[in-house]
Amino acid sequence: MQTSPDPAPAGAPATANPTCVVNCAVYGPDGKRDIRLDDISDVLAVDDGSFVWIGLFEPDQDVLAVLQGEFALHDLAIEDAGKAHQRPKIEAYGDSLFIVANTAQAIDERIAYGETHIFLGARYLVTVRHGASLSYAPARQRVEREAELLAMGAPAALYAVLDAIVDNYLPIVDDFKATLNALEQDIISEQFHRGIVIRLYQLKRELTYMRVAVTPLQDVLSQLVRSSSPLIPSDAKLYIRDVLDHSVRINETIDAIRDILGTALGVNQALVTLTQGETVKKLGAWAALLAAPTLITSWYGMNFHDMPELDDRYAYPLLIGGVGIVMIVLYRMFKKARWL
Amino acid sequence: MQTSPDPAPAGAPATANPTCVVNCAVYGPDGKRDIRLDDISDVLAVDDGSFVWIGLFEPDQDVLAVLQGEFALHDLAIEDAGKAHQRPKIEAYGDSLFIVANTAQAIDERIAYGETHIFLGARYLVTVRHGASLSYAPARQRVEREAELLAMGAPAALYAVLDAIVDNYLPIVDDFKATLNALEQDIISEQFHRGIVIRLYQLKRELTYMRVAVTPLQDVLSQLVRSSSPLIPSDAKLYIRDVLDHSVRINETIDAIRDILGTALGVNQALVTLTQGETVKKLGAWAALLAAPTLITSWYGMNFHDMPELDDRYAYPLLIGGVGIVMIVLYRMFKKARWL
Amino acid sequence: MQTSPDPAPAGAPATANPTCVVNCAVYGPDGKRDIRLDDISDVLAVDDGSFVWIGLFEPDQDVLAVLQGEFALHDLAIEDAGKAHQRPKIEAYGDSLFIVANTAQAIDERIAYGETHIFLGARYLVTVRHGASLSYAPARQRVEREAELLAMGAPAALYAVLDAIVDNYLPIVDDFKATLNALEQDIISEQFHRGIVIRLYQLKRELTYMRVAVTPLQDVLSQLVRSSSPLIPSDAKLYIRDVLDHSVRINETIDAIRDILGTALGVNQALVTLTQGETVKKLGAWAALLAAPTLITSWYGMNFHDMPELDDRYAYPLLIGGVGIVMIVLYRMFKKARWL
Amino acid sequence: MQTSPDPAPAGAPATANPTCVVNCAVYGPDGKRDIRLDDISDVLAVDDGSFVWIGLFEPDQDVLAVLQGEFALHDLAIEDAGKAHQRPKIEAYGDSLFIVANTAQAIDERIAYGETHIFLGARYLVTVRHGASLSYAPARQRVEREAELLAMGAPAALYAVLDAIVDNYLPIVDDFKATLNALEQDIISEQFHRGIVIRLYQLKRELTYMRVAVTPLQDVLSQLVRSSSPLIPSDAKLYIRDVLDHSVRINETIDAIRDILGTALGVNQALVTLTQGETVKKLGAWAALLAAPTLITSWYGMNFHDMPELDDRYAYPLLIGGVGIVMIVLYRMFKKARWL
Amino acid sequence: MQTSPDPAPAGAPATANPTCVVNCAVYGPDGKRDIRLDDISDVLAVDDGSFVWIGLFEPDQDVLAVLQGEFALHDLAIEDAGKAHQRPKIEAYGDSLFIVANTAQAIDERIAYGETHIFLGARYLVTVRHGASLSYAPARQRVEREAELLAMGAPAALYAVLDAIVDNYLPIVDDFKATLNALEQDIISEQFHRGIVIRLYQLKRELTYMRVAVTPLQDVLSQLVRSSSPLIPSDAKLYIRDVLDHSVRINETIDAIRDILGTALGVNQALVTLTQGETVKKLGAWAALLAAPTLITSWYGMNFHDMPELDDRYAYPLLIGGVGIVMIVLYRMFKKARWL
Repeated sequence: MQTSPDPAPAGAPATANPTCVVNCAVYGPDGKRDIRLDDISDVLAVDDGSFVWIGLFEPDQDVLAVLQGEFALHDLAIEDAGKAHQRPKIEAYGDSLFIVANTAQAIDERIAYGETHIFLGARYLVTVRHGASLSYAPARQRVEREAELLAMGAPAALYAVLDAIVDNYLPIVDDFKATLNALEQDIISEQFHRGIVIRLYQLKRELTYMRVAVTPLQDVLSQLVRSSSPLIPSDAKLYIRDVLDHSVRINETIDAIRDILGTALGVNQALVTLTQGETVKKLGAWAALLAAPTLITSWYGMNFHDMPELDDRYAYPLLIGGVGIVMIVLYRMFKKARWL
Repeated sequence: MQTSPDPAPAGAPATANPTCVVNCAVYGPDGKRDIRLDDISDVLAVDDGSFVWIGLFEPDQDVLAVLQGEFALHDLAIEDAGKAHQRPKIEAYGDSLFIVANTAQAIDERIAYGETHIFLGARYLVTVRHGASLSYAPARQRVEREAELLAMGAPAALYAVLDAIVDNYLPIVDDFKATLNALEQDIISEQFHRGIVIRLYQLKRELTYMRVAVTPLQDVLSQLVRSSSPLIPSDAKLYIRDVLDHSVRINETIDAIRDILGTALGVNQALVTLTQGETVKKLGAWAALLAAPTLITSWYGMNFHDMPELDDRYAYPLLIGGVGIVMIVLYRMFKKARWL
Repeated sequence: MQTSPDPAPAGAPATANPTCVVNCAVYGPDGKRDIRLDDISDVLAVDDGSFVWIGLFEPDQDVLAVLQGEFALHDLAIEDAGKAHQRPKIEAYGDSLFIVANTAQAIDERIAYGETHIFLGARYLVTVRHGASLSYAPARQRVEREAELLAMGAPAALYAVLDAIVDNYLPIVDDFKATLNALEQDIISEQFHRGIVIRLYQLKRELTYMRVAVTPLQDVLSQLVRSSSPLIPSDAKLYIRDVLDHSVRINETIDAIRDILGTALGVNQALVTLTQGETVKKLGAWAALLAAPTLITSWYGMNFHDMPELDDRYAYPLLIGGVGIVMIVLYRMFKKARWL
Repeated sequence: MQTSPDPAPAGAPATANPTCVVNCAVYGPDGKRDIRLDDISDVLAVDDGSFVWIGLFEPDQDVLAVLQGEFALHDLAIEDAGKAHQRPKIEAYGDSLFIVANTAQAIDERIAYGETHIFLGARYLVTVRHGASLSYAPARQRVEREAELLAMGAPAALYAVLDAIVDNYLPIVDDFKATLNALEQDIISEQFHRGIVIRLYQLKRELTYMRVAVTPLQDVLSQLVRSSSPLIPSDAKLYIRDVLDHSVRINETIDAIRDILGTALGVNQALVTLTQGETVKKLGAWAALLAAPTLITSWYGMNFHDMPELDDRYAYPLLIGGVGIVMIVLYRMFKKARWL
Repeated sequence: MQTSPDPAPAGAPATANPTCVVNCAVYGPDGKRDIRLDDISDVLAVDDGSFVWIGLFEPDQDVLAVLQGEFALHDLAIEDAGKAHQRPKIEAYGDSLFIVANTAQAIDERIAYGETHIFLGARYLVTVRHGASLSYAPARQRVEREAELLAMGAPAALYAVLDAIVDNYLPIVDDFKATLNALEQDIISEQFHRGIVIRLYQLKRELTYMRVAVTPLQDVLSQLVRSSSPLIPSDAKLYIRDVLDHSVRINETIDAIRDILGTALGVNQALVTLTQGETVKKLGAWAALLAAPTLITSWYGMNFHDMPELDDRYAYPLLIGGVGIVMIVLYRMFKKARWL
């Protein structure tokens, strides 16, 4: 399952950390070192420029209690972190920041939403994932890899996580755009069927819900960029502004697609109406092609005694010819008027 | 009745308080103690960290007059509290805050709106319920239960009441969302009937009215969070910000549902139009299947003397076969063109 | 006529004031006393806590000139007051405020708009009514009646007038809401006719124009509440904020009704389309019920010599039975498919 | 031609000014005096409370160069003034203001847009008209006539010109409103034809373009009112605020009409759909009135040997009566069901 | 290819610059002089009022690395400049500004978007083009030509580039407007066909995407105008404000066209519906013209023994006349009712 925590690396040192602890390591000038949850405060006691990065997946209360003890976190934040369904927000509790961000993940053509709760301190970052989201292992590897980020400490880790969260929306939005383009082709190429309309509707619905997720995420990023907290130094803000730009672009794209979708629905309706008008004309033309000779045949089915033409020898062949001519003329007329 | 005041607990001490007084108690470090309205000023005379919490349900003027005397409330606020149909607002009168909040309650599939007027002083909270709303007994029990809240005093009681008010909207909005999902299924599964459209309309109307109720409530909460009043200490603001977040989320969900509803109405219209086009085609096809043989039979009903085929012995069986072939060919043509 | 000035009370002292002067009195601690326009400056010369309240209805230039002399009003304000069709606004001229407010009045199912121009000074209030508006006599009586307002002086008179103006919109908006509810019932109960659509349109149009009137009125009230003018003391602002709240509520209700009206129009269209689809099906079913036996009868109208069934003795009764069966079967089929 | 410069008054002193100079005069305490362009700096050298007012119509570069020399204008402003298609704006260049305003004029049922560029200095005002606009002669005459304005100097001239520009939009907007009312009547009175829809469209389009013109004009006026430039004294601002109010009212009216137009289009569509439904019903009813007797006559056209009723003597008159009854019954049924 | 870098002028001095370097020159009081990338820092070492202007087209990392060395650019900016798909923004890195702007270019009826990244320093401007955009050679020539701009230095070069970028949108928007006008004519002149609707849709889609490009460009320009950076002197701001005005006008035009397009789609739908109603009426009229005589002929095809009129000698000619009269009367009725 994509949403499960990353499996512990084979042959990992047997830290006694519970399984909901996906990652627990200290990142310093001399690289990354896995530690036990209980050792955090010991590690932080020495200020050697290192910081601790914990990654949790749907942790239980016990683990959160241990963390609260090690990092001296606020009651309210711990309470929040223990339950999902928070609105994206940023909250300053004492000398730490508590950030809630929405995450999205496309699973089998549906979008599942999750949340990541983040505690940022001067020398630590704790991420708590709830529900659908990708692992932050790539974000951690990026920080390990890029010396500049590693040197910036915990804020760089925050940046890497936020960047991963926002970038996760991009393929979904691109997918929406591709679907819209495909539907556009269907609409234009006269391939009307119920499926197109239903798909347009579902697309619009998904985008509406995604917008509810992304807009407050953008607010959170914008608050971080404007934040006066000493936990977010100005060089970190340069990076976070980049993430903000991505979220703005995602939002703008969502709005543009939503806008175009609305027009596409209207255009589809217009084309269906046009096509129906053509159907009605075609029906009318065929009805006339049948009704006109029916009138003629009905005429000569009348029982008047004195209908001289009935007795004429060439009457019947003439009638056949006449009906034929009527039908050809009508057909041409309708063809010319584009009813057929 | 859900909207009636909570019945007095059986065997409650016979405080002489009128029936519109749902609750009247002092909350202190040593727990909750029921008191008489007239004793309030005596209790408040001793500053022992306790606060008084009064709960009223549609009180008469006499009770309000007593309260005004005990808490030294402003004339205008008392006047407001005596009558319903106020717009949610927050007003500072002297050293007390007067807050009006909208309440909603689903009663038999309809949403009834009520109001709660709140007086907040340094050491008291008075709630005055008008119209539909749930009792605040759970909110009081929560404050009694959570020591942290109890220690915060009157602002915690305010938080508990506001939290109960906003949380009351959540099941209603969730219900709306469930209804929308059910209607979506109906629309998609080609189950058109008037009921769907009417239900979509009613849903939109209810959401529009609910929005008129929730938006100013959100404004009130946002003003409380930004308030510089000493009555709202900053630790209480952390809690109230949480309530604000919930109201924002409710508002966003209402907007999203309204948006999707609008699209659903359009999509329903589009599908109905598509289906009608198919009906017209089907009618046209059947009309042709009847009109074509009618032309043939009408043809051989003509009374020309010289219609040699009429006299042929196999003419009639041949005609039967011919008509059969015409009908089969037409049927296949229409089937292929998806008119049938 | 509702819009005419209040008739002078019978047996009133024969003040020589022109008829466009509806009211001219000094309000002091010892009650109200009618005075002549020319005596105003003499009255104001003695600062005894009293204030002068003038009510005019479409005054001529001479009366305005007298007022300008008595109160030392600004040329531009006097010029404005003499002509209608001003936009609601608030303007500070020297040591007086000039306020323009829109008034509305339902006359015979139509809404007529008027204007009231108000001059507020430290010790006077002049109201100039133009066009449709109710008399401010009730507002004056209220100030006379409520000691608290009377003590506040001219700002209280301003409050009373503004409150009367805004409250005048309420019954109109309530009427709109009632009309919408009635139309809703008509739409839902399948009572389509042109009248419903036209009424929805007219309602939307009236609301759109009313919004143009109320929105700037709300702006004016909001400016008064935020005003730093010494003419509006802070206790008067508490009252005016109440009027502002009413105007906001009116605006919100107008927006909600407009919103619902838009949906109602769409829903009406959707139901009309649905009903038409049913009409087409019904027509198709009846056409088939007639066309099928017509084909059969046409069949046996053919003149083939060898149509053995024609000669059979029971052929005709059998045919009658056959056609009957065909029609019953078709009828049941259509009934089952809900085409009939 | 309305857009041509005003012709020089007959018998005017032969100032050697080029024809693009519509007006060039000095306005002082002792009235207006026409001068030559080259004399401007001489006139301004004496500070006697007078100001110079130049009116140009699509001037050539030479005239602009002379002006630049006389008033020491900024290069960029002169460059702007020489070409049309500027966006309304206000720009401070050194000690002068450069203002661009959109003008509109209804010519033969179409709205032509023009621009007026204005240079305002301490003692001069230069207006440069491009494209469609009325002459500012009435504005000049107003300043000459009203002593109060004349005393205010150049800012009063600016006010008079801006007032003329904005007032020019009023009759156009009133025209739009009248057209909307006429179309309303057509829509309601069942007079559907293509012309109505096309006229609604054109109205909406014109209003959309007009809005693009008026909105920035309102911005410019609002900037002037808030301007801290010494060129706009506070008493002039009182006047300009009045112009701003007019522009706001025009904008609000445009928005209201646009809004109502949108509804009118929807209502027209709804009524057309309703009417078409009635047409279909009428067609269906008439089809039944023809098809039912056709079935009967076809029935008795069958050639069965044993159709006893054919031989009955009263059969034919009975049939005539029967068919008549069938048609009368059907007619009444359809009449009752309002299909006819 | 329009998007390719400008070819090196024939006979240009063989500077060893790579091909992605479109331009590399120093602009000073004594004109323009081409230099090698590696000589930049030498040139800048002497502060003689000159500035360096580099133009790159999709440069590789090596060239960017050289530039970073010569101008001491920030890592993040260089990283950004190396990759496309940035959102328009303005970022201050140390003592340089980094600006990203969207460019648009119509290629074969489609709009291709590109980006230009700009580094502005006190004495240099670097432009990096990605994707579709026109060459900035005309911008460079303009700066060379206009002494005033040349004297302003690097900010003037920035202005010239931004002006070229924004002006590039103008012909595209004008094209859109022309297309809208052409479609308008088609819609009004009853030339309905699928192509019109599809073109309206495509126009709306292109405008929606263009808006996503232009809106942030306008934000960037507005930030430049309000910027407090010493790199943008106030006289340069006058120029940039002009570019801002153009971008605002483009945005307003896009919005107006989008608005009108929406109305055009609705009007097209309304006219199509009206036309279909006319088609149905025409079909009904023709059906009646055929069905009425069919009923008559069917009548006289009945086999009653006693149908006296059948034996009448003049019956048949009378019938012919009667049918003729019926058809003429019906035809006139339908003509009068405008069904034909």
